[in-house]
Amino acid sequence: MDDGLSVGIADVRAAAGRLAGIAHRTPVLTSRAIDAMVGAEVLFKCENLQRAGAFKFRGAYNALSRLSDEQGQAGVLAYSSGNHAQAVALASRLLGIPATIVMPTDAPACKLEATRGYLEGCGELVLYDRAQTTREALAERMLNERPLTLIPPYDHPDVIAGQGTVGLELFDQTPQLDYLFVPCGGGGLLSGVATVAKSECPACRVVGVEPEAGDDATRSFRTGQLQTVRDPETIADGARTPSLGEHTFPIVLACVDEMMTVTDKELVAAMRLVFERMKQVVEPTGVLGLTGLIKSSSEGRLKRGSRVGVVLSGGNVSWGAVYQE
Amino acid sequence: MDDGLSVGIADVRAAAGRLAGIAHRTPVLTSRAIDAMVGAEVLFKCENLQRAGAFKFRGAYNALSRLSDEQGQAGVLAYSSGNHAQAVALASRLLGIPATIVMPTDAPACKLEATRGYLEGCGELVLYDRAQTTREALAERMLNERPLTLIPPYDHPDVIAGQGTVGLELFDQTPQLDYLFVPCGGGGLLSGVATVAKSECPACRVVGVEPEAGDDATRSFRTGQLQTVRDPETIADGARTPSLGEHTFPIVLACVDEMMTVTDKELVAAMRLVFERMKQVVEPTGVLGLTGLIKSSSEGRLKRGSRVGVVLSGGNVSWGAVYQE
Repeated sequence: MDDGLSVGIADVRAAAGRLAGIAHRTPVLTSRAIDAMVGAEVLFKCENLQRAGAFKFRGAYNALSRLSDEQGQAGVLAYSSGNHAQAVALASRLLGIPATIVMPTDAPACKLEATRGYLEGCGELVLYDRAQTTREALAERMLNERPLTLIPPYDHPDVIAGQGTVGLELFDQTPQLDYLFVPCGGGGLLSGVATVAKSECPACRVVGVEPEAGDDATRSFRTGQLQTVRDPETIADGARTPSLGEHTFPIVLACVDEMMTVTDKELVAAMRLVFERMKQVVEPTGVLGLTGLIKSSSEGRLKRGSRVGVVLSGGNVSWGAVYQE
Repeated sequence: MDDGLSVGIADVRAAAGRLAGIAHRTPVLTSRAIDAMVGAEVLFKCENLQRAGAFKFRGAYNALSRLSDEQGQAGVLAYSSGNHAQAVALASRLLGIPATIVMPTDAPACKLEATRGYLEGCGELVLYDRAQTTREALAERMLNERPLTLIPPYDHPDVIAGQGTVGLELFDQTPQLDYLFVPCGGGGLLSGVATVAKSECPACRVVGVEPEAGDDATRSFRTGQLQTVRDPETIADGARTPSLGEHTFPIVLACVDEMMTVTDKELVAAMRLVFERMKQVVEPTGVLGLTGLIKSSSEGRLKRGSRVGVVLSGGNVSWGAVYQE
């Protein structure tokens, strides 16, 4: 591509074609209470209602559906503590591709259980102890043994293009946004959605939001140099990624307008708001965007009366972790 | 009416006209996991996403909008431990009618808080201690002192007609249901929805579901004699009503096909299922219908491959009651 970026709007449109009738076109919900609270009209893109409970299904399915027959027969490998694992497991099941998924033993129980369910009869779940080995080392060993194709959780053009379809749908459902707040871990969702925003609604200000403890993307964005935070302590388990990637970083630099951080305490307050006012179950990582919006509004940095898009990116939070039984 | 019932389909249609553009036309959601579990195609009518978090807004708004100018100026009185209180408070606010709401001090915190919010500047919240007095005694004293109109929580034709609009929308969104599972407390929602089902889809089997500890409606239905259970011990706080009413009981007898009960333990399992698989927050009373469906299926009483409607009636459950902070 002439802009030097790994993904363009045409790639996202092609991904949308592959996902049509397979991924859910998730609804856009609104809340008068939250509108009143932030002084804006907020449109929530509910990827917590996506198949396998998060936007990750889009990128995984898009990537898997682009494999050659040979690659598909040999199978895929993915490592993830959560939503990417479930997404690859489900996508491989749907496409008839054998999958090997590597997850840490301390991944959220609901994510382990769901991944195991999707893999039943068509794949393998490999658990590892984070204290004993790294997933990269384990994956490397497996890739040396078998001709598997690695499906990375975010830093891959097909994954990014798939995640971008969240934005394509949102701008179709609610044109003319003034702002768009998007969760950021490794930047797959953010770079995909920002690619779409710059094409479909150039005036829309795209804001990426990450946990304060893992502020690598915000510092990378501000310095122009890739920064790393290993194993940040945050309840946003989907955003514990060490850094942006070689594909996502240039897109974030080119297409995102602002990066900001929020605290775990602010994330819990936003989860509660979504629970009480919208009756939606959204995981900590999933409310990063809303939390950033609330913070921007309370700091007076949001134009009153704006139209604001917020991606609620996933809903995979264990009942046992939240509910007292 | 020639069938002797207090509410007919024409009343529900008229209510729908009054609610148009004011109540939400709530979405119908589905879940592949739950379909597979019960062996049927299940269509969930999400009244947890209704304004004020439950179907009750429909009946309250319909009843309030039918008051005379004089009645409206004098104001309304409602007593409720929960969703009816919030519903009347919000409807009165929207219609500019002063409201006095009587609630017990031990009502769920989120319901007290929300009711107080809606009443701000346009009504009054009166709290009472359940150990000291009954809400009926308190309400009677207030009605003697002031010319208020009492808006009952379920046993009123305008309230029933308003609740019936849930069914009108559902049959419009998903025609041809084989079964429809509906929560039952005092029978306002059940009788309204059953009225619609008998008119729009006579072959649809309407099943009312109530908590086992408060099985008054099931026994009333089976014996043809009104039965009463005072203060049943159940987590389904919206179904702690002592009995069906003089308007709802005849409609339940005429239009409902089956009544059944479920335990609190079964309700919690269903809440968990809806939380984990549908990412929806639904209160214990709100999952009565789904719980009845799961039970019917596991007992082999559901035809495989059926199309089944389920009303998720409300989502007002306190975060503080369920979240470990």
